[in-house]
Amino acid sequence: MAETLILHEDPRSGNCYKIKLTAALLGLPLETRAYDIMKGETRTPEFLARVNANGRIPVLEIGANEREGSTARFLPESNAACWYVAHGSALIPADRFGQADMLRWMFFEQYNHEPNVATLRFWLRFVGETNLSAEQRAQIMAKRMAGCGALELMNRHLANSDFMSGAAVTLADIALFAYTHVAEEGGFGLSDYPHIERWIARVQALPGFIAMD
Amino acid sequence: MAETLILHEDPRSGNCYKIKLTAALLGLPLETRAYDIMKGETRTPEFLARVNANGRIPVLEIGANEREGSTARFLPESNAACWYVAHGSALIPADRFGQADMLRWMFFEQYNHEPNVATLRFWLRFVGETNLSAEQRAQIMAKRMAGCGALELMNRHLANSDFMSGAAVTLADIALFAYTHVAEEGGFGLSDYPHIERWIARVQALPGFIAMD
Repeated sequence: MAETLILHEDPRSGNCYKIKLTAALLGLPLETRAYDIMKGETRTPEFLARVNANGRIPVLEIGANEREGSTARFLPESNAACWYVAHGSALIPADRFGQADMLRWMFFEQYNHEPNVATLRFWLRFVGETNLSAEQRAQIMAKRMAGCGALELMNRHLANSDFMSGAAVTLADIALFAYTHVAEEGGFGLSDYPHIERWIARVQALPGFIAMD
Repeated sequence: MAETLILHEDPRSGNCYKIKLTAALLGLPLETRAYDIMKGETRTPEFLARVNANGRIPVLEIGANEREGSTARFLPESNAACWYVAHGSALIPADRFGQADMLRWMFFEQYNHEPNVATLRFWLRFVGETNLSAEQRAQIMAKRMAGCGALELMNRHLANSDFMSGAAVTLADIALFAYTHVAEEGGFGLSDYPHIERWIARVQALPGFIAMD
């Protein structure tokens, strides 16, 4: 691959970690540029104009290729960036149902899991419970219940399967591993979910695995 | 295609409409089975055991194929079902960046757009404002602001592009069209977003287009 891949990230973000873990499992080089989201570094005019008008990280920058005359391109959304990095690899099933089933769990992650499991971790570990707004505080119980529902669904699925989609590791595992393995930082007790605990150990044992920090 | 595709749906759901619109634009047959989510018909023991343990629609059922000896398979998550239906068609770009960029908007739809634009439509049009819980009522303003942010980002993107990803219609347009074109039912004024209004007309003019009801 001639092109340079640059990850614009906050190292504390599980969404950014997904992309680093994907590259690591595939042995691909990935440069990083760090921002502190707590200091608003992804809301500067420069960031909004050049990297992502949505003001969010991660963003995968696909470097300019002078030989081909291409300019840099920017790809927000963690799971889309994982798709780009893993394209053509065994982390994406080749068959029609396998691809759709993997994407099924990646959309589940963004809709049912991340807004609850990751958001509670962010609020409780990084913002701090005493600094939450009344509106945030009012949402804790709903997010706790919805997060437990997502973990329970994963746990039941993993009772009959070593990985989230099909028989081998895919991007569905990477997407869901990122915030599941640190769910206790958001107040979720993983000992309630023994199949998830075994799956976490399975992912951590993969060749090329890197930890989050 | 030998297999029968059956959509388990609630006809009022934009997430279900995405899959019907995908099939219609491709001229593919799609059977439907209707459920009333307001009456809990997707939470019955039969539905949870056979169709989707998550208790949600849409679910795409890929029919058993006796000739190949395969049993029925079930695919939840609207955007994953669209991927399955559109596999190998022009609605999914063939190139690496094009696929990832399309998925970027589909993940944006599930994370930034649907939980705000679709949820407010569901609360205000189907549940009714007077029937909302205090907790739901407390979230209306945050969802209004986040929904406007998602529409504003789409509007700016469509100022320079006829479609959401690349130069032609893709699943990104279908995913975002479903709840954007009925956003006014959730109290969003589309006249604030002229590029979105022109894009809606562009999607409605596509050969094979079907309306939501």
